[in-house]
Amino acid sequence: MEKLKKYISVRDEDHFYHQGAVELLIFNFLLILTILTIWLFKNHRFRFLHETGGAMLYGLVMGLIIRYVTKSPDVESGTVYECEKLKSGPSTLLINITNQVYEYQYKREISHHNVNGHQGNAMLQKMTFDPSIFFNILLPPIIFHAGYSLKKRHFFRNLGSILAYAFLGTAISCIVIGLIMYGFVKAMVHIGQLKQWEFHFTDCLFFGSLMSATDPVTVLAIFHELNVDTDLYTLLFGESVLNDAVAIVLTHSISIYSPKENPNAFDAAAFFQSVGNFLGIFAGSFAMGSSYAVVTALISFMHLTKFTKLCEFPMLETGLFFLLSWSAFLSAEAAGLTGIVAVLFCGVTQAHYTYNNLSPDSKMRTKQLFEFMNFLAENVIFCYMGLALFTFQNHIFNPLFIFGALVAVFVARASNIYPLSFLLNLGRKQKIPRNFQHMMMFSGLRGAIAFALAIRDTKSQPKQMMFTTALLIVFFTVWVFGGGTTPMLTWLQIRFGFFYRVGVDPDEDLKAKAASQSASDLDKNTTKAESAWLFRIWYGFDHKYLKPLLTHTGPPLTSTLPEWCNPVARLLTSPSAYGDQLKDDDTVDIINNDELTENCESSAHIPVPAQDSTGSIQATGKEDIQEGDLGLGGYKLQLQHTAGQSQKSSLA
Amino acid sequence: MEKLKKYISVRDEDHFYHQGAVELLIFNFLLILTILTIWLFKNHRFRFLHETGGAMLYGLVMGLIIRYVTKSPDVESGTVYECEKLKSGPSTLLINITNQVYEYQYKREISHHNVNGHQGNAMLQKMTFDPSIFFNILLPPIIFHAGYSLKKRHFFRNLGSILAYAFLGTAISCIVIGLIMYGFVKAMVHIGQLKQWEFHFTDCLFFGSLMSATDPVTVLAIFHELNVDTDLYTLLFGESVLNDAVAIVLTHSISIYSPKENPNAFDAAAFFQSVGNFLGIFAGSFAMGSSYAVVTALISFMHLTKFTKLCEFPMLETGLFFLLSWSAFLSAEAAGLTGIVAVLFCGVTQAHYTYNNLSPDSKMRTKQLFEFMNFLAENVIFCYMGLALFTFQNHIFNPLFIFGALVAVFVARASNIYPLSFLLNLGRKQKIPRNFQHMMMFSGLRGAIAFALAIRDTKSQPKQMMFTTALLIVFFTVWVFGGGTTPMLTWLQIRFGFFYRVGVDPDEDLKAKAASQSASDLDKNTTKAESAWLFRIWYGFDHKYLKPLLTHTGPPLTSTLPEWCNPVARLLTSPSAYGDQLKDDDTVDIINNDELTENCESSAHIPVPAQDSTGSIQATGKEDIQEGDLGLGGYKLQLQHTAGQSQKSSLA
Repeated sequence: MEKLKKYISVRDEDHFYHQGAVELLIFNFLLILTILTIWLFKNHRFRFLHETGGAMLYGLVMGLIIRYVTKSPDVESGTVYECEKLKSGPSTLLINITNQVYEYQYKREISHHNVNGHQGNAMLQKMTFDPSIFFNILLPPIIFHAGYSLKKRHFFRNLGSILAYAFLGTAISCIVIGLIMYGFVKAMVHIGQLKQWEFHFTDCLFFGSLMSATDPVTVLAIFHELNVDTDLYTLLFGESVLNDAVAIVLTHSISIYSPKENPNAFDAAAFFQSVGNFLGIFAGSFAMGSSYAVVTALISFMHLTKFTKLCEFPMLETGLFFLLSWSAFLSAEAAGLTGIVAVLFCGVTQAHYTYNNLSPDSKMRTKQLFEFMNFLAENVIFCYMGLALFTFQNHIFNPLFIFGALVAVFVARASNIYPLSFLLNLGRKQKIPRNFQHMMMFSGLRGAIAFALAIRDTKSQPKQMMFTTALLIVFFTVWVFGGGTTPMLTWLQIRFGFFYRVGVDPDEDLKAKAASQSASDLDKNTTKAESAWLFRIWYGFDHKYLKPLLTHTGPPLTSTLPEWCNPVARLLTSPSAYGDQLKDDDTVDIINNDELTENCESSAHIPVPAQDSTGSIQATGKEDIQEGDLGLGGYKLQLQHTAGQSQKSSLA
Repeated sequence: MEKLKKYISVRDEDHFYHQGAVELLIFNFLLILTILTIWLFKNHRFRFLHETGGAMLYGLVMGLIIRYVTKSPDVESGTVYECEKLKSGPSTLLINITNQVYEYQYKREISHHNVNGHQGNAMLQKMTFDPSIFFNILLPPIIFHAGYSLKKRHFFRNLGSILAYAFLGTAISCIVIGLIMYGFVKAMVHIGQLKQWEFHFTDCLFFGSLMSATDPVTVLAIFHELNVDTDLYTLLFGESVLNDAVAIVLTHSISIYSPKENPNAFDAAAFFQSVGNFLGIFAGSFAMGSSYAVVTALISFMHLTKFTKLCEFPMLETGLFFLLSWSAFLSAEAAGLTGIVAVLFCGVTQAHYTYNNLSPDSKMRTKQLFEFMNFLAENVIFCYMGLALFTFQNHIFNPLFIFGALVAVFVARASNIYPLSFLLNLGRKQKIPRNFQHMMMFSGLRGAIAFALAIRDTKSQPKQMMFTTALLIVFFTVWVFGGGTTPMLTWLQIRFGFFYRVGVDPDEDLKAKAASQSASDLDKNTTKAESAWLFRIWYGFDHKYLKPLLTHTGPPLTSTLPEWCNPVARLLTSPSAYGDQLKDDDTVDIINNDELTENCESSAHIPVPAQDSTGSIQATGKEDIQEGDLGLGGYKLQLQHTAGQSQKSSLA
């Protein structure tokens, strides 16, 4: 008894000080290193190893150090105890040890060959944090940021292709990987390389779906820095954003797919139920995300007009914005839907409506806050991936399986991009050229989402093997393909506007702007008729009813709603909307011209004279300002606000 | 086996979806409610229930709902298992159940009367999150923000009194509470109200130290809003900030105090060792925090001058600033020191040196980021306190103990404030009036720190009882005293400048400013000689050597260092410092005049004509700008930066 008490008090003391501090410190240290590296790279325009690759490398080295330098202080923990009374593993275990009850919590299932010395290393244990932290805390800001910073105009211009790549492409990729892996597993069982675990076809499909989430963050960062062709950028960015959502919902649907009897036989009913699940989950998540954004827009709209004064407290506004967006994610997860999809569309809708209602100070604050969170979360995830290779304690390395997966991933990417591009080119006015297709094939990196999906479930042994494999594929693709992006761009002769960064004469800029303006004026008449009618209807509806209802832009509702709705309309319209009426007709033109046409810049990807290229870059810059993105107009206003506000809010 | 597999797969599925999402959603919901409430309160100038009180109330209601509405779905978990082979509770338990090894992790010790149905309620279990989250994630931003936003001038003017209250006062409070509680416990054991747990005198002192951490966040927020007398505000703010640090170090020292034999006898050696521990930990933490800040200042300084360009990436700068400040906390914790003290002094030093080196954009970003994190963290903690009353599963309510603690807390506060004020008034030129003393007595609220210290260790049963008691005292003081602040201010006839908020004629402001300027000019000569010589030396050193070395302000090092150091000095001085040389002499005067005199505004707390009162408020405003706090000068620069930068950093 005395000895036991002493033992516990020693552990208590250990818990009391530096509980968790060392692990967080290691992450901080890695992030600081990463930031300094980024800064160095940016300073020297070094592009062969991207910051995410660097973060992974640092994580890897740190993981190696932790694994082989720290010792296992806990002697007892290697021992496996037998409890005859237990028939299954409850999530909480109450154990009576020498007349004192202790509470234990379920962690995971452990494969027999992993029950060895390393199990007891408390440091390793603590470094592998709960996968729910990935899903609930680290991923949402990344996905929200992607949605929030989506360039709407370019996105909608390529919407058809993006949807095809994201939905059809991911499904193809998932099935191809699943089939190849199933063949591999069968063959491996046959030659005795794999014990007879129950590796069903659904497990292979599960692996296929999680490996279908591409994450070309490295490639996109380089594209952005080099100002690579906007259409290629948008195609890749749009595909990768939506494809994550699709892959996650697919993984979810497959994991709840439960054929009645023989798990290997094809069960049509269960299959269709799964497809139904997929559609239901996707639609539900979409609705959840958008409705949260609409609620935010309404609250911020009300505040600005009727009850006012929330805009006087930019921190409250930012807080509300942040919490409601995060709630969209959490509500979807809690309702059994997919939070990632919800938060993605929440981000898109917030950017479309709520952003316009925010006070200038809040616009800035939310933008910077989400940018910062995205930056931190991304680097934490990549550091963690590096760490996980050595600190995760239940790896199951199977070289054959890994080789098979690598082959499957590339075959799947090829059978996704090339056939779909061929089909899309049949319908597109503005073809996707061959070198773009190669670049998209090359950009099939796997990253955070694949990793997060794999680590979410490492409880059974097939899942642990999948996790190890997924991790190694992430390493391989990020380092090899991420590092090879710039050479590949040069080799494929894809133009990029690198010179623009270094400095362009502002006068020339203005000239180019005028040129592109007149060019788009020419396009206007020819392209108006070609716009997809569905989007035209949606834009009309959005412009006439939703924008006036949810923001301060657009025509007043009194002029767009039928006469008998006038009293309601007057109540719902912001006073400032009336002033915008004149300006408004231009906006319609811009929308028709910029957001709905499929080939406004039809000469965009043949190597062309410098003038046109500057023009398309200019367009990007113009859009940024138009979206209020740190534009000058909002800035002046903010100055007035903060000058009066700084004292009031500094301790509130 | 089949049944077991099914069981596990069901749990897996449950883990796969909404793991942790519901709990986070509940917090989000509570925070959203709190923000809407704050907004409502601010709109209606309602001051009887402060936002923190509101957050606690919402948490309480939510806790009640969770406790009595959710059911315990896990049938098995109420059962206590006996494992004969185990002789103590290891931190990780490997259990072999029907030929599969499972891993379990140690949570806590459970008192026998708490082993009942509620133990198995998974929802309740999940809502009580790990106390290390409080210490490592929620507290640092709050404390850092306190240090970062400390008004240096007012703080230093009252430094002697603040240090006396913080160090002597907290020690007195701790000992008084400890003694009273020890008497209570003895009496309770005597009348049979308390079982013979081993409730040592050190346990009582431990309770005393944790209950000595005052947290007048509610009072200060109201003071700030009402513009209550700056000296009273500074006394309270300074005391509460330093007092937290002292209380935490005290708690730490007491918990490692280990008398040789009889734990109740006084052991002089152990006592002095404890005092030594206290001083060592405090000094070590101080050094750790300051040195991190100096490193940050050096990095940001280097970036601005020699290697440049980090200021071109404000997000990297902000990230580095954030991570290094957090690392100060974590390193101190990891080294067995006190992170809170480290992060507090890190904040103070960052504000003094690093802040000046940041690019204007980063100044803004860091300020807003820390403000936002402080706001969120504070409200999360108060919500959580409300929740904990019903969701924490190991409460031990003991009415007598609670009553005793309440009495002890008030006696201790009184025997801290009144005697110390009396002694201080003997030395102070500018006395602390009677009504200020009453107000300080009244502001002895207990809040986040007391709660965090109590929840950090709830493993043994005396500690569980202390936790319950601490929680109830927090509730009582926040609601009763927090709510009574405004009436108390009126009753004690402490003037406040409420009218200033509503709007003051800017012309009048300027006149007042001129008036206060000339008043301070008059003071200058009379007070210069009275400044404490120690601070004079420190300021001289800081101004001549540290500021030029670490920031861009101050005279160039070439003029302050002896001649033979010139080559080194030239290397270390920023080019912009030479330009500041002329301006600089004024700064010395300001420092001498404003920061070191004890009675520059000697007429500050007798009800006085309006002009003087506006003058003192004006001084606060002036200081804000002087510290670069959203000042206009830095703003223009930022505009230039972001205009060029927005594109570059939006996806980096």
